[in-house]
Amino acid sequence: MTKNKQATLLLAHGSSDANWLAPFEQLLQQIQSSLGNERVELAYMELAEPSLKNQVIGLVDEGYQHIDVLPLFFAAGRHLRKDVPKMLEELQSDLNKGPDLQIQLHPPIGLFPEVADAIGRIVINQVNKTS
Amino acid sequence: MTKNKQATLLLAHGSSDANWLAPFEQLLQQIQSSLGNERVELAYMELAEPSLKNQVIGLVDEGYQHIDVLPLFFAAGRHLRKDVPKMLEELQSDLNKGPDLQIQLHPPIGLFPEVADAIGRIVINQVNKTS
Repeated sequence: MTKNKQATLLLAHGSSDANWLAPFEQLLQQIQSSLGNERVELAYMELAEPSLKNQVIGLVDEGYQHIDVLPLFFAAGRHLRKDVPKMLEELQSDLNKGPDLQIQLHPPIGLFPEVADAIGRIVINQVNKTS
Repeated sequence: MTKNKQATLLLAHGSSDANWLAPFEQLLQQIQSSLGNERVELAYMELAEPSLKNQVIGLVDEGYQHIDVLPLFFAAGRHLRKDVPKMLEELQSDLNKGPDLQIQLHPPIGLFPEVADAIGRIVINQVNKTS
């Protein structure tokens, strides 16, 4: 059995404000530098490029068959409950790869215990600096 | 020299949608359970209670003199660059405690390397599950 080519898209909301986008690029670089050969890219839901749609199409063109979409959100509001699943369904349909393409939308990263732990450590470091 | 009473407020955007607020409560509980006696609370910038203003006033009433505001945001847009600093300046002025009250607004947690590391670990765990 051949191994599926897998990639991860970190999904951010997007904004027309370049100041807002810059930290996501910085975050992506930090994450990429801590990983090995795993393919990880950014995608914006709206208002900025690279868009989710263009990133998925690009990865599929490169032969990726399993795409994990990991939202850089703290909570699942309307965007993550409705808009993004609809975008992904439409993409899945348009690309017409059937079961050879799996796009998986994950819970927002704010719900992962790793992130709660990280924030806990940041709080502790602040407390130690203050006192 | 007496030690200042310090508390941390985790600042989220806020929403009128209860589905959106619930994960922040969950995140707060996870963080509180990982900490010792440090005082950590949630505050919303708008559209939901407890508001930033009410949380600061409540902590000051309890005798807290140093309040760290840690935004649960990935990037500093207009809200964090303008709206929140203005709210904190007005609070500082209204509360009229002078240098006995220090309110410190920190960068958004998305800029801390601890959070990038946590997301990197989440990505790795996903890749391992997929392959």
